[in-house]
Amino acid sequence: MAFDMATAVTPDLKKIGDSARLASRRLGKLSASLKDQALANIAEGLVSRQAEVLKANAADMAAGRSDGLTDAVLDRLVITPEGLEDMADGVKQVQALPYPLAETFDARDMPNGLRLGKRRVPLGVICAIYESRPNVTLDIAALCIKSGNATILRGGKEAFNSNSTLAGVIRDAVKAAGLPRDAVQFIESTDRALVGQLLAMREHIDLVVPRGGADLVRRVAEEATMPAITGGIGVCHIYVDRAADVEMALSIASNAKLSRPYVCNALDTLLVHSAVAPRFLAELAADWKDAGVEVRCDRRALTMLGDVAGANTVAATDNDWGKEFLSLTAAIRIVDSIDEALDHIDAYTSGHTEAIVTDSYAAANRFLDEVDAGVVMVNASTRFNDGGQFGLGAEVGISTSKLHARGPIGLKELTSYKWTVIGSGQVRT
Amino acid sequence: MAFDMATAVTPDLKKIGDSARLASRRLGKLSASLKDQALANIAEGLVSRQAEVLKANAADMAAGRSDGLTDAVLDRLVITPEGLEDMADGVKQVQALPYPLAETFDARDMPNGLRLGKRRVPLGVICAIYESRPNVTLDIAALCIKSGNATILRGGKEAFNSNSTLAGVIRDAVKAAGLPRDAVQFIESTDRALVGQLLAMREHIDLVVPRGGADLVRRVAEEATMPAITGGIGVCHIYVDRAADVEMALSIASNAKLSRPYVCNALDTLLVHSAVAPRFLAELAADWKDAGVEVRCDRRALTMLGDVAGANTVAATDNDWGKEFLSLTAAIRIVDSIDEALDHIDAYTSGHTEAIVTDSYAAANRFLDEVDAGVVMVNASTRFNDGGQFGLGAEVGISTSKLHARGPIGLKELTSYKWTVIGSGQVRT
Repeated sequence: MAFDMATAVTPDLKKIGDSARLASRRLGKLSASLKDQALANIAEGLVSRQAEVLKANAADMAAGRSDGLTDAVLDRLVITPEGLEDMADGVKQVQALPYPLAETFDARDMPNGLRLGKRRVPLGVICAIYESRPNVTLDIAALCIKSGNATILRGGKEAFNSNSTLAGVIRDAVKAAGLPRDAVQFIESTDRALVGQLLAMREHIDLVVPRGGADLVRRVAEEATMPAITGGIGVCHIYVDRAADVEMALSIASNAKLSRPYVCNALDTLLVHSAVAPRFLAELAADWKDAGVEVRCDRRALTMLGDVAGANTVAATDNDWGKEFLSLTAAIRIVDSIDEALDHIDAYTSGHTEAIVTDSYAAANRFLDEVDAGVVMVNASTRFNDGGQFGLGAEVGISTSKLHARGPIGLKELTSYKWTVIGSGQVRT
Repeated sequence: MAFDMATAVTPDLKKIGDSARLASRRLGKLSASLKDQALANIAEGLVSRQAEVLKANAADMAAGRSDGLTDAVLDRLVITPEGLEDMADGVKQVQALPYPLAETFDARDMPNGLRLGKRRVPLGVICAIYESRPNVTLDIAALCIKSGNATILRGGKEAFNSNSTLAGVIRDAVKAAGLPRDAVQFIESTDRALVGQLLAMREHIDLVVPRGGADLVRRVAEEATMPAITGGIGVCHIYVDRAADVEMALSIASNAKLSRPYVCNALDTLLVHSAVAPRFLAELAADWKDAGVEVRCDRRALTMLGDVAGANTVAATDNDWGKEFLSLTAAIRIVDSIDEALDHIDAYTSGHTEAIVTDSYAAANRFLDEVDAGVVMVNASTRFNDGGQFGLGAEVGISTSKLHARGPIGLKELTSYKWTVIGSGQVRT
């Protein structure tokens, strides 16, 4: 049933927090098979309750159109029957992954007979604050259930009805598997003030993960009183080395820029070695002018591209370096050495995804060694930085933090550990 | 040379931060053997420059006595020639540990041919804000050097001259090994305002670790703009189960309370099953009255201990549960089941160290499974929660955070990772 926003009451966040904490304790004691059953139930519910979800989504789409949302935003908002099946498949993929909690690691026996080990445990209660795409509701809930964490979901305004209905499907499925329904909770209000209240709930929430634009990420980084894993801001560079296979570089650069320009792992800045720049840029410009890419060029690149009829080029300003374009725009700078490329990346990286295209073993290794980012690639499209593509089933987000987890946050990244110490009466002298 | 506080100038923190960042980049490229050489040089310097260190420490001791510091504080402040040798041995122990950075883990080959792996890397720049004992300067510097991190050390006022001199020994030793001297920096001022400025330096500092009392830990948790690993506040419980070996329980409880009462892993609250309480408490009281322990008792424990001549007992108030005593004081509560003990721990734990004494396999496993703390023990003294005792060489602190690292923070806990992706031209479809 589509939720009537006019009658939405402010939810009692403390009650939500208390019941999430209680549910997280119960989840810790329940078996892996019950959690997998919950995921199977969710996948089934997405199919059997298709009509209900599509109706709620239609309400969001109608509201979005009358609010004047762009086609790009509406495109990410829409749920088709096929999209719903994809969501169900995604949940089944998470179900099929190994259980992340059945593990003791770093075990060691000490000379005094104490047996030490680290036992993998859930983090507890995870709050996700996210915008736009409704499939995020499924990704986060599925990963949290499988890893034994309770979840508090706060979705974006545009997808409110879709998310609310999907959360209902999830909660019913969880309950039917014998897990506490409150293991997954959805904030049934779009009141912006609630975000600030959530960020103050350090007693109830062990980790907050923002997934959305730069404003949201910054707000969470600044206001959260509990640990946060921030990320998702991808200023992605591709360095086309002097030893690059130019055809490969063209294929990778175009895939990274064109396949989905508005996502965080899309290409932003191309750094091109001057030795290959004339040939590379001439061919690139021919491809990109058809795709309608606007290219912000440094002085030398502008000269080289000036000869290509119809290329949409402008002179780059200082603001174009280190900018996440999230559109069919890219910056290009010509460099005379890998050192210059590394210095540029060092100055402008957001720590998300950086790639080199090269046939030089030495250049590849320097790039892997020296670039400080969550994901560093050789001869591959930046678009691969993604939980699904990395075999994690899905992702709660992509971390650019250095602490705890970097890159896609999957099951393992949603766990902590406790040391266990097994003695036979040892005391310390 | 003892540092003259009157002439101390406010150090330029930005300059310190910039040079720490630069040093951390250089450290990342330097070999394991150079880092080990730096540690060997430090150990040697502590011995060869003994007179200088002892003189600086004497100045701190004199100032401490005239400031009226307690004997307990002075006892932690003093450096003896033997203490200096112990510090040198500690540094050599860290040197002997395996290099934490030479590791790629979670490697996997994807169906499309991409080769993924996580490569262990340093965190970058670590700021430690600590109080009292000068040996902490050595522990933190040694662990950070070995793990490739630059360090900014801010020690306590009482140990200022000692720490400043030790930092000089460390920096000279680091330099002599060919590492940048600024890999280890010491804030040459005790101005309290500098702590607030350090906590705002998120561009320069990747992780801040407070090591000191509750006020410092709280301040860092609230004010730090960069990630922090907090901890060190140990409200430690020992549950003496109905199936406990009473002699073992007495030995463990006394070791946990008496061996060093002012440290974070000392016992605070004893939870005693009613079936063993009469015999256990009678014997415990006899031991503890000689040691001068004040015991805050619940109603039943007070009745039982009332019969022991000379026992220093008072009725517990609500404030005594969940209190870190840091002194020869302990609280005792009688429980009628392990459930009651688990509920009490759940309500009052600080997530530091919790222990059970039992011969019951089922009770031991329930305790290990259900207690949510950094370190959970069976039949061992809580005093073992310590980096050295866990084979980590030393510790930067003991984390009660759940994110990133829990329990003692050693070499591995001072690292992060980056994903490496090795392709051959793959693009995403």
